[in-house]
Amino acid sequence: MLELVSESICFGGKVSFYRHSSKTCNGEMKFAVYEPPQAQKHPVPILYFLSGLTCSEENFTVKAGAQRVAAECGIMLVVPDTSPRHTGIPGEEDDWDFGSGAGFYLDATVDPWKQHYQMYSYVVDELPGLIAANFAVNPQKQGIFGHSMGGHGALVCALRNGDRYASVSAFAPICAPTSCPWGEKAFRGYLGEDRGLWRAYDATELVLEHRRDRPILIDQGLADPFLAQGQLQPEKFQQACDRVGQPLTLRMHPGYDHSYYFIATFIEEHVKFHAEVLY
Amino acid sequence: MLELVSESICFGGKVSFYRHSSKTCNGEMKFAVYEPPQAQKHPVPILYFLSGLTCSEENFTVKAGAQRVAAECGIMLVVPDTSPRHTGIPGEEDDWDFGSGAGFYLDATVDPWKQHYQMYSYVVDELPGLIAANFAVNPQKQGIFGHSMGGHGALVCALRNGDRYASVSAFAPICAPTSCPWGEKAFRGYLGEDRGLWRAYDATELVLEHRRDRPILIDQGLADPFLAQGQLQPEKFQQACDRVGQPLTLRMHPGYDHSYYFIATFIEEHVKFHAEVLY
Repeated sequence: MLELVSESICFGGKVSFYRHSSKTCNGEMKFAVYEPPQAQKHPVPILYFLSGLTCSEENFTVKAGAQRVAAECGIMLVVPDTSPRHTGIPGEEDDWDFGSGAGFYLDATVDPWKQHYQMYSYVVDELPGLIAANFAVNPQKQGIFGHSMGGHGALVCALRNGDRYASVSAFAPICAPTSCPWGEKAFRGYLGEDRGLWRAYDATELVLEHRRDRPILIDQGLADPFLAQGQLQPEKFQQACDRVGQPLTLRMHPGYDHSYYFIATFIEEHVKFHAEVLY
Repeated sequence: MLELVSESICFGGKVSFYRHSSKTCNGEMKFAVYEPPQAQKHPVPILYFLSGLTCSEENFTVKAGAQRVAAECGIMLVVPDTSPRHTGIPGEEDDWDFGSGAGFYLDATVDPWKQHYQMYSYVVDELPGLIAANFAVNPQKQGIFGHSMGGHGALVCALRNGDRYASVSAFAPICAPTSCPWGEKAFRGYLGEDRGLWRAYDATELVLEHRRDRPILIDQGLADPFLAQGQLQPEKFQQACDRVGQPLTLRMHPGYDHSYYFIATFIEEHVKFHAEVLY
């Protein structure tokens, strides 16, 4: 059962914010959707956007300027929150890069996080079921993209579920989380010390065994401070793609940083990249 | 002397946030700019955006999606904050519709506000001087637009200074502030009880004596709750324009509310409306 929080008309379609009781995450979850004007006439394809650390479902919805292009292309946008919140787990709000706002799109296996932090299953299974049941969509036509931690999430979801996602792209994704500070902290906390388990959520590892036929699109700003810090490592993903013949369009953009100003600049190309596959 | 707070590349141009010591407002003021890529080659026209109640220079910059169109048209965007802040005036933070975030683009005449709240002179005089001195602009080519309280401000600035602003438009402006709750509260607080003084900041009054040759563009959502509350009153402005033969394009949009989703939907038409005059 979805509870409508707010809605606004935008580019002839509708931006809506919902909350609902999630079985997977064992508590309340939130997401935003954009229904393009075409959805009033026929079922439309679905494009999921997974957001980065500290974000909620609101950041992308407010800042990326994606509705204009989604309205033009007839694509429904679905934007989940980045974690469960207010779970009562001690310390969930203590760190900006772990716990609330930092679910890392995985299914936690370690107490106490595993009681709620099941974002992988939420994004891949529960949320698409809710969308199919409640909106004028074609559930056979799904794409996924994301930013930073959400770029990691999009790559992992698409690589592990090639049959469910026809298209995947990312902005400044965390490409090799098993070997960067953000990823190591998150995986240790949510998955424990066994690094063998971590590989199921590392795009650079996954692509070696889950090659996709269609190209993957990644945009990365060269003035992104997290690139310099080694948190993103697109070069590692590129090498892995090259090794298995995975088609990858990796574009490095001088001057651009990690912000939504970067995302907004290239959002049109990303939505159209997905629309070409989904239509 | 401008102090750069932050900058990001966006659509090939640059979004920057500045603070500076304002002589007019007797304290620190902030603004944002977007320099389009064309500004690297030649001076560009300037388009000021005045924001609404509770906003800072950030809301429009982040939410409106204007940089894409400004980059296409070669227009510099300048977005001032909506009031002085942290002035030390008792109670400045108490109300969301008066004091901080609610400067109403007028020159206050009542103590203690008059010591700082000089937003009309700041927008019309001091800020353009700073922009001309520090950026690659053509100061002879200025347009102005705004939203809600900022739509009021844009109309007032343009009507009183037809020689300085070649173009003016507004989203859901407060058209007749001397006869709506927001305006009456603000004008009483900043200007005192003499309603004769209020008329200098009421677009519906001003247009009767300051007809502009060029058309004014106003977009208004019909699902805007503040329209129903009588805060905006575009019909009064329409009647005044009709009376003096002021060309006005007033578009009423079914379903749209007062949010930035409404602004984002029509921002392209507004920026191009200005660009046609400014180029």
